Amino acid sequence: MIKVAVNGYGTIGKRVADAVAAQPDMEVIGVSKTSVSAEAYIAKERGYPLYIADLSRKPAFEKAGLEVVGDVEAMIRAADIVVDATPGGVGAKNRPIYERLGKKAIFQGGEEHEVAGFSFNAHANYREAEGKQFARVVSCNSTGLVRLIHALDQAFGVERVRAVMVRRAADPDDIKRGPVDAIVLNPATIPSHHGPDVRTVLPQIDIVTLAMIVPTTFMHMHVVQMDLKSGTTREEVLKVFERHNRIGLIRKATGIVSNAQLREYTQDLGRPRTDLWENGVFEESVAVLNGKEFYCFQAIHQEADVVPENIDCIRAMLGTVKDPEESIRMTNEALGLVPIG
Amino acid sequence: MIKVAVNGYGTIGKRVADAVAAQPDMEVIGVSKTSVSAEAYIAKERGYPLYIADLSRKPAFEKAGLEVVGDVEAMIRAADIVVDATPGGVGAKNRPIYERLGKKAIFQGGEEHEVAGFSFNAHANYREAEGKQFARVVSCNSTGLVRLIHALDQAFGVERVRAVMVRRAADPDDIKRGPVDAIVLNPATIPSHHGPDVRTVLPQIDIVTLAMIVPTTFMHMHVVQMDLKSGTTREEVLKVFERHNRIGLIRKATGIVSNAQLREYTQDLGRPRTDLWENGVFEESVAVLNGKEFYCFQAIHQEADVVPENIDCIRAMLGTVKDPEESIRMTNEALGLVPIG
Repeated sequence: MIKVAVNGYGTIGKRVADAVAAQPDMEVIGVSKTSVSAEAYIAKERGYPLYIADLSRKPAFEKAGLEVVGDVEAMIRAADIVVDATPGGVGAKNRPIYERLGKKAIFQGGEEHEVAGFSFNAHANYREAEGKQFARVVSCNSTGLVRLIHALDQAFGVERVRAVMVRRAADPDDIKRGPVDAIVLNPATIPSHHGPDVRTVLPQIDIVTLAMIVPTTFMHMHVVQMDLKSGTTREEVLKVFERHNRIGLIRKATGIVSNAQLREYTQDLGRPRTDLWENGVFEESVAVLNGKEFYCFQAIHQEADVVPENIDCIRAMLGTVKDPEESIRMTNEALGLVPIG
Repeated sequence: MIKVAVNGYGTIGKRVADAVAAQPDMEVIGVSKTSVSAEAYIAKERGYPLYIADLSRKPAFEKAGLEVVGDVEAMIRAADIVVDATPGGVGAKNRPIYERLGKKAIFQGGEEHEVAGFSFNAHANYREAEGKQFARVVSCNSTGLVRLIHALDQAFGVERVRAVMVRRAADPDDIKRGPVDAIVLNPATIPSHHGPDVRTVLPQIDIVTLAMIVPTTFMHMHVVQMDLKSGTTREEVLKVFERHNRIGLIRKATGIVSNAQLREYTQDLGRPRTDLWENGVFEESVAVLNGKEFYCFQAIHQEADVVPENIDCIRAMLGTVKDPEESIRMTNEALGLVPIG
């Protein structure tokens, strides 16, 4: 069993911990929090050993009925690998600790590529991860783009990508961020940083991205246009998506045309935390114009799509499973990721 | 003085009426309402003669202290030209009345092109309107696209246009429509109808559009990408916009990066009803990549940008001013449309 520590038990960390616990070849040896919170009680409910950054806060945790096993360094020492799901920028500060203790670590998309020196996506570059001490799972938006671009690049060749990210304003439990009634250009300059981020995994791709933030909480919505190298049809593209195990087709027959309805659907499906781990591609939107010009809308669940990538990244880095498809299949099966459409 | 009747005194009609009243060569001879409402009181406050569709409702208006001059047909008879600003689809039903009475009429973008047989934009096809009995001012989104595309087509030639419309959910006073927390694909199919609508004015343009609705009320946000025929620079493009009298550059120095801040700005400028009559192009977003690939974000005020177009359309159809630039200058001056940036 691979011993996994989750440093930072928040939006991503709590999902990764549950995903690790569900795998047949991994166990959660600890999760960390900096202060008492609702999530700390969830860790207790799940039975994950709780570690804290600053032991002087231990009495506050214990007063709240939360047992603390030790400090974060003790947790890291006990692990084979650490998934660092701390807030953006904190991972870079944690790296020297992992180096000093000689531990492998996976950072999230909130860190710069340089913090790990290697950016990961299971379908695109699984085999390159073996033996690396550090890797970074690219952000939710980049993960969603990389999956789609890589799939079509493999099938038809991709000449260039132009994409618009219409991003959710805040996560559902984030009561401090806005806007409540505005479309915010983020950034107002063109292009956005998402294109270069995709190129940390797919360096050969000509990609320009633009981004804005709108008042919704459930998911990002991507408008993706690609010029393909070989001509194809809508039907051929749909076949590629149907065969892909992390791209879900939202069937026209469901009547779902928004992130809100899609969330209701994943909720009804019984997905934990309503998580959409795969890309949600709207079948109705898939179009091939002029023979080579691909278009679609896809929903990207900002809290969830990177979770299975973290799991695959663990196996890839440790070299316990050599074949990416085998790891992806194991991860999906353990999570209960079956086609949504 | 050109005698103008405004049939349908709502979101667009009330703005057109004020714009007509501000012109030196036009007067409002009447506006129409179907029932008592806040807007009927505004008509009274402005001194516009009030006509109603159904005279049996006259007692209800009079009980509310609103004087009714007569029915809509009487208003039409008294006019040289009618601006039909009734809800989408009603214009088509009104057309036989204008035909029977031999009156010129201007429809709005909520009607099909075929209702008028001629779609209008002041910069693009002013001279073609002369002598026509019917014209249609294209929708707010199409007006915004046509201005931008035509300007760059004149300057550099436009090879193709790809645009994403991120649309406001409802007008600010519309308390019945949603969504409040969703990104709705509208339509979920690609392309949207906006491209063909642009081509009713600019038939030569290769354009593909996509559209969605988000929870905001102030303005639409457009992501516009154009491949230009001749290579150019960001500076040359900015010069085109600076010289254009219905494209406003939102300067980076203002710090405005959203529709909400832009509305606050037009409000502070003292614009009536905070109206942004021109395209709001974000200076910071203007980019020329690879020499010929143009990008920008632009804000389009759904309630306002078609208003000056209706005014120019009146002069164009009646032939009282032959030169489009002269009419545009007169309209802008009377409205107080001075550069925002």
